[in-house]
Amino acid sequence: MPLCVVGSLAIDHLITPRGEYPNCLGGSASYFSYVASFFAPVRLVGVVGQDFPQTSWDTLKSRKNIDTSGVQVQPGKTFYWKGEYSADMNSRETLDVQLGVFGEFDPVVPEQFKDSELVFLGNAPPAVQRKVLQQVPKPKLSVCDTMDLWINIAKPELLHLLKEVDGVVMNDSEATLLTGDKTMVGAGRRILDLGPKFVVVKKGEHGAMLFSEFGVVTTPAYPIEDLVDPTGAGDTFAGGMMGYLAGAGRLDHAAFKRALAYGTVVASFTCEGFSLDRLKKLTRKDIEDRFVLFREMLNL
Amino acid sequence: MPLCVVGSLAIDHLITPRGEYPNCLGGSASYFSYVASFFAPVRLVGVVGQDFPQTSWDTLKSRKNIDTSGVQVQPGKTFYWKGEYSADMNSRETLDVQLGVFGEFDPVVPEQFKDSELVFLGNAPPAVQRKVLQQVPKPKLSVCDTMDLWINIAKPELLHLLKEVDGVVMNDSEATLLTGDKTMVGAGRRILDLGPKFVVVKKGEHGAMLFSEFGVVTTPAYPIEDLVDPTGAGDTFAGGMMGYLAGAGRLDHAAFKRALAYGTVVASFTCEGFSLDRLKKLTRKDIEDRFVLFREMLNL
Repeated sequence: MPLCVVGSLAIDHLITPRGEYPNCLGGSASYFSYVASFFAPVRLVGVVGQDFPQTSWDTLKSRKNIDTSGVQVQPGKTFYWKGEYSADMNSRETLDVQLGVFGEFDPVVPEQFKDSELVFLGNAPPAVQRKVLQQVPKPKLSVCDTMDLWINIAKPELLHLLKEVDGVVMNDSEATLLTGDKTMVGAGRRILDLGPKFVVVKKGEHGAMLFSEFGVVTTPAYPIEDLVDPTGAGDTFAGGMMGYLAGAGRLDHAAFKRALAYGTVVASFTCEGFSLDRLKKLTRKDIEDRFVLFREMLNL
Repeated sequence: MPLCVVGSLAIDHLITPRGEYPNCLGGSASYFSYVASFFAPVRLVGVVGQDFPQTSWDTLKSRKNIDTSGVQVQPGKTFYWKGEYSADMNSRETLDVQLGVFGEFDPVVPEQFKDSELVFLGNAPPAVQRKVLQQVPKPKLSVCDTMDLWINIAKPELLHLLKEVDGVVMNDSEATLLTGDKTMVGAGRRILDLGPKFVVVKKGEHGAMLFSEFGVVTTPAYPIEDLVDPTGAGDTFAGGMMGYLAGAGRLDHAAFKRALAYGTVVASFTCEGFSLDRLKKLTRKDIEDRFVLFREMLNL
């Protein structure tokens, strides 16, 4: 089933305890589409400035499963983010952010993308996410991401969006910010009450939780030995999850559980290198091999 | 295989967002032995004062699998702990603690307990834990718990102990305190380097991790809907884990994975009531039913 993703494409400057990595490919939609393309055709909608590096284009276009015809090139600068992680890499500080052309992003879903059966609305203002949803009239599955900023400054729009999508993916601190509930079982349930049919709460090194009519599923993170850079872990988690569902062509509960596991597995690879470096060396076989280890670890 | 546990027996005064519960049964060995007794015969070594309530004796003696003949009754007061949990119950503050007879606890392992094949050294000064180990000469499996206090004030003794036991169970903040490593994969590995053959790191609502020569196993917590009082969750986790191993009579890697899962399941019941209230209504069938749900949740 074809999968359409809308989100940011960025130039990142990353600082982690493992080193500094300037001028690299970043953005939620970059990470998402790259890993999702291992599972299914991905249609990418986004915007970059004229400074978007050729190497970043090359990275995206190296994946035959990614259709970049929905990426607009606008006069101006590409979204830029510079961030530094704490010693344990569980928190990070934004040192510089320049929205550039992403600040005025008016997403246009190309005609040939409108029959997408799965849609992922990467982090963007909820009003922008809703605009996308209106352009893809009948997806079988629509899922949005969000962030603390929109919960703080655009909550009414976000609540609107949550009534229109099938599912939402957010991290634990955002789930608490949105609901006021510090327990994840509680926060997840409260978000379900806001409209979506399912909620995925990402907990970083502590894994993820899925809330739906079938109850709660918790899954741990894959224990990696070599944490280099967690940037994009959440986006690749979503990309692996949605990509798996698109590739499997099934949206039942068992498929969702596997989708969480594939999201977990690809996110673990993401953390093993700066930017998309580890992912660029990834093969479908690497993913399957680690999935088998993960399944075995959880098999009682 | 008979299991011997040494640890505290206490009178607790608990305050959680769900209410206040004074003068109830507490202590690491109470929780541990109660749940372990669902799986195997448990030999309990501890000390109480003359004020230890008859209702608490009744609770322990109601479990035919618990042999309380190793509990000394000393002149003086029973260990008393009063604590209050934060709104999300992820942290707690000690409001009052009086060691009473536990402060001078000189554990004596009765003759009839000395052939125990599994030994669990509940939280106590490392020097006291080592004394117990010397009295049970050849266990097939010895495991200790510890706490931040001993890491801070008795680290050399604790490091000695870690070279003598087969395994150690501690929570995430203690693992970080002991190793200086804030990532659990890192901290767990470093503790292995200190001597034990395996390390279990308890992460509360985020589950647990097992480190051994077979690598890392992570398991999530069982998602409970009705969190009443987390007191004893860590102790019952250890009790379910050790109890399962004792009952299964196997100490291979597959048994350890299942043991983690049983620990997780019994800990989830503990949190559903104050003190041991939920556990007192528990049946082996309840445990098995929830284990099946947990296994199914993790089954990919």
